[in-house]
Amino acid sequence: MNRIPFDQVQQTLKSVLEKLGMSAKRSQVCARLFCETTRDGVYTHGINRFPRFVETIRNGKVDVKAEPKRVSGHGALERWDGQRGVGNLNALGAMERAITLGREHGIGCVALGNTNHWMRAGTYGWQAAGAGVIGICWTNTMPNLPPWGGVDPIIGNNPLVIAVPRAGGAVVLDMAMSQYSYGTLDAYNDRGEKLPVDGGFDKDGNLTKDPAAILKSWRALPVGYWKGSGLSIVLDMMAAMMTVGNATHQLAADPLLETGVSQMFLTMNPAALGSAKAVDKIADEIVASVQNSKPATAGKRVRYPGEQTLKVRAENTELGLPVEPATWEKILAM
Amino acid sequence: MNRIPFDQVQQTLKSVLEKLGMSAKRSQVCARLFCETTRDGVYTHGINRFPRFVETIRNGKVDVKAEPKRVSGHGALERWDGQRGVGNLNALGAMERAITLGREHGIGCVALGNTNHWMRAGTYGWQAAGAGVIGICWTNTMPNLPPWGGVDPIIGNNPLVIAVPRAGGAVVLDMAMSQYSYGTLDAYNDRGEKLPVDGGFDKDGNLTKDPAAILKSWRALPVGYWKGSGLSIVLDMMAAMMTVGNATHQLAADPLLETGVSQMFLTMNPAALGSAKAVDKIADEIVASVQNSKPATAGKRVRYPGEQTLKVRAENTELGLPVEPATWEKILAM
Repeated sequence: MNRIPFDQVQQTLKSVLEKLGMSAKRSQVCARLFCETTRDGVYTHGINRFPRFVETIRNGKVDVKAEPKRVSGHGALERWDGQRGVGNLNALGAMERAITLGREHGIGCVALGNTNHWMRAGTYGWQAAGAGVIGICWTNTMPNLPPWGGVDPIIGNNPLVIAVPRAGGAVVLDMAMSQYSYGTLDAYNDRGEKLPVDGGFDKDGNLTKDPAAILKSWRALPVGYWKGSGLSIVLDMMAAMMTVGNATHQLAADPLLETGVSQMFLTMNPAALGSAKAVDKIADEIVASVQNSKPATAGKRVRYPGEQTLKVRAENTELGLPVEPATWEKILAM
Repeated sequence: MNRIPFDQVQQTLKSVLEKLGMSAKRSQVCARLFCETTRDGVYTHGINRFPRFVETIRNGKVDVKAEPKRVSGHGALERWDGQRGVGNLNALGAMERAITLGREHGIGCVALGNTNHWMRAGTYGWQAAGAGVIGICWTNTMPNLPPWGGVDPIIGNNPLVIAVPRAGGAVVLDMAMSQYSYGTLDAYNDRGEKLPVDGGFDKDGNLTKDPAAILKSWRALPVGYWKGSGLSIVLDMMAAMMTVGNATHQLAADPLLETGVSQMFLTMNPAALGSAKAVDKIADEIVASVQNSKPATAGKRVRYPGEQTLKVRAENTELGLPVEPATWEKILAM
């Protein structure tokens, strides 16, 4: 594993994007988001994902020149058309707009249809929390998860983010509706390890901790069995209905061909009603109640969602971004 | 099991509430909500729950005369004080207000603090969907669930509801953050049955399907392990921060003493931006994609969230509400 300074990686990715026709200004931001994702330890959706992202530009699924367009609005709610542009830039802009709407109306909502994969979901949660508002966002995805009681992967793992601002460090939940991503299943499989908890079904329909069996059956497990299955369905419904865009069943079941997804960005502004100090204190006390609770393993501490991110972020900022040599070679050759 | 007509049960509960000092008009509505809960098959929170609800009136935790009060507002967002009044009436009023705000601003939000247990969470989802808007609501609860990595039940099972309107039948997800409620664990235990999937830990910290072991350890399992634990924490944070109200760690860990909980009611109005017909079609197609997918068990069909409710509702409406004779005796004696 190489360690390369953040700025150097960003500059390299930016050059690649510019060669692909993206404007200098947008390339700068798009590259930054990939780097920040690796910096925060979400290695599956950062630099390692960049080559696949470039493929979707080359195959025409992602239009680097398209800018999102406001379709309609009513008070605190707006509908935008992503015009099949760059997923992470579209999402960043949508959350920015939702933040503005939240400041104006107390809460805000942008429904962004016809867009592309936003890469790391958590990005837009950290963005909202960094602006001092609660951010809730989710995306639908191509079909990749069987519903509870079903066999075929016809629902999406539809990542959901809930981010809560806090002076002492935002609390950011970033969860897909599958217990494990296929990336994680691959990683366990490569290491020849079993999963810590059941992650899906084998070909005979039995729950299993064997990643190889799940990779063979393509029957990953929804979070909480029937509950995550239901949550996936309603997240898809809300996103497709509010955008009047595509639902999971309409998306190509191939990461290189998936395009035109539907996303939701909601903000709530606790400061809109005053009591900002009291609100901060409430957040701190809840975090403390979790951190100070009795751990299951002596010597470990119970963590709040997003806590680990700040630690990894500090480490990768100091040491440089960890980059696979093979991936780096590939990017340098682009 | 007796079968008693809806109206007769409602009249009986109403009389009890009036004797306890609740106005005739409010008693009528409060009794209706209990009856509708049983009618919809949520037996733990309907008529069977009524005696315990009466106890919380008698012990002073629920003030039958208190009416919710608007504390502050900013555009599409309002903060209300439930004044420790009747939980289901407060919640019904809060969702009603959120529906109005959603009609006005495209989306709406009411943060209701200092209120009491709302009984069936799904009630307010069906209410929103019935009014043609998407409803999202959740409540925090007394501490009753250990966080992931922790031993003591210091987080809440914080039920979350997401309801999507649809002409052919609303899609309503009603899920607590524990894989099983204690009521369900009790029921399996009474029948001497194992749980279908892991429901918590035994006293040695091993995952188990044995309800007795979980009832002994008081270590129920969050939905999706670490994911549901994180979701419970952020739901609590949002509710407490937006209401400037109590968080789970401040609530009495006793169902008879729990009071002053914090609740959130959000609405999104798909029709605000036009395209109502297209929106309906999207909902129908998603439901069809789920229902028409291949079932894991031959002869069964994959169901969408809330589908079963309509079937049970029809049955209980026709046959009368199922009421335990012992519970009914108790209520008649009140």
